[in-house]
Amino acid sequence: MHLLISFSVCLLLAVTAVAQKPHPCKSPPLMVGRLSMIYPRGQLFVYERFSYDGLGQRIRVWAQGTNHNQSFYEDVLMLFREGVVYHISYRNQTCKKRALKVRFQPMEVPHNATLQAQIIIGSSSGPGQGLLVNNWVGEIPEKQANYYMTFTEFGCLPVSTLYTSEQYGWIFTSFFNLVIGIEDPQDFIPPDFCDTTKPVDEGEEVVTDFFEALLRKDDQ
Amino acid sequence: MHLLISFSVCLLLAVTAVAQKPHPCKSPPLMVGRLSMIYPRGQLFVYERFSYDGLGQRIRVWAQGTNHNQSFYEDVLMLFREGVVYHISYRNQTCKKRALKVRFQPMEVPHNATLQAQIIIGSSSGPGQGLLVNNWVGEIPEKQANYYMTFTEFGCLPVSTLYTSEQYGWIFTSFFNLVIGIEDPQDFIPPDFCDTTKPVDEGEEVVTDFFEALLRKDDQ
Repeated sequence: MHLLISFSVCLLLAVTAVAQKPHPCKSPPLMVGRLSMIYPRGQLFVYERFSYDGLGQRIRVWAQGTNHNQSFYEDVLMLFREGVVYHISYRNQTCKKRALKVRFQPMEVPHNATLQAQIIIGSSSGPGQGLLVNNWVGEIPEKQANYYMTFTEFGCLPVSTLYTSEQYGWIFTSFFNLVIGIEDPQDFIPPDFCDTTKPVDEGEEVVTDFFEALLRKDDQ
Repeated sequence: MHLLISFSVCLLLAVTAVAQKPHPCKSPPLMVGRLSMIYPRGQLFVYERFSYDGLGQRIRVWAQGTNHNQSFYEDVLMLFREGVVYHISYRNQTCKKRALKVRFQPMEVPHNATLQAQIIIGSSSGPGQGLLVNNWVGEIPEKQANYYMTFTEFGCLPVSTLYTSEQYGWIFTSFFNLVIGIEDPQDFIPPDFCDTTKPVDEGEEVVTDFFEALLRKDDQ
């Protein structure tokens, strides 16, 4: 009996310990927020406002920045399930529809990521002075890339991501002002002046990458 | 009378607005914490644990990292008021005393820094999910350098600093696990095997820079 109790206590402690260790997590499916992205090798600096719908696999992005010292502004709606990306210009009332041949990547810590450290940004000495976050590392073998991700412990919200690879150098993204939920569901509906019925010609320009989708200028 | 009330209300609103705008601030005078520093041009990566006494102008640093792919470990006590730096080795029971010719730089947002943005790292949608911080920018004309600093709104704690200059490239420091107060006041007292009475020969090696102080190897 004594042995059984000891064993139960040990098991309980073990389960508690396992439960307390951070695990890879998924971000809330509906979010709006801002991010800044630095990609030195591509001479790219982007500041974005975005609406993210992980359920419908839809992302709307309003991006501004500089690409090779040329400033740009982009309004992009990516519908991953339909495999379509719209480059929208309200000023010109134009809309370019292109094929989007890239798998939807939800905001999450990959399930095979390794916990590097749990840290507090700022301090735990006073209320509102610190943020508990987890640092994750991992590899993407098929792209010969490594990633370093920081997500909040509570809420599983992205704080920053760093991708490094021989091919691309490094891409650093920092997230902020995140709000859980969608402010305007119309963000994911193409405006009236977009011809949504127009078929996407596969022989035409095809966007195969998230960043490429962002950077193709609306050259209509 | 009506005019006077209107004027008073306007003044009150103005004062409130001014009070709500973030102002450059000083960090708590006593702190312990950790930081990581990246200085690509110097091929330097450092991870530090530090004790900081802004009142006594004393900093103790336990640093480990790589410098030109050579790993190093340093235990350094900087006494800015006395103008002395000790490079301590408990393993060898040795202690190198050098002159420290650098002005103490308290942890603070410089008074002439410009507010770039107030942002929330993470989210304000749930408790413990976000951290309100202020981004500051400024110039150091005498060093032809620019700085970008992020400090918490509550507590004025450092989150990150970025220095850029033509001469050095960029130096990025990220702070975490800060605790207000000093864990061990003995951190600032040289160990017994340090000959504190030994005069510092001004003709000898002189450390004129904080980073230099950190990187001089204990070559005794």
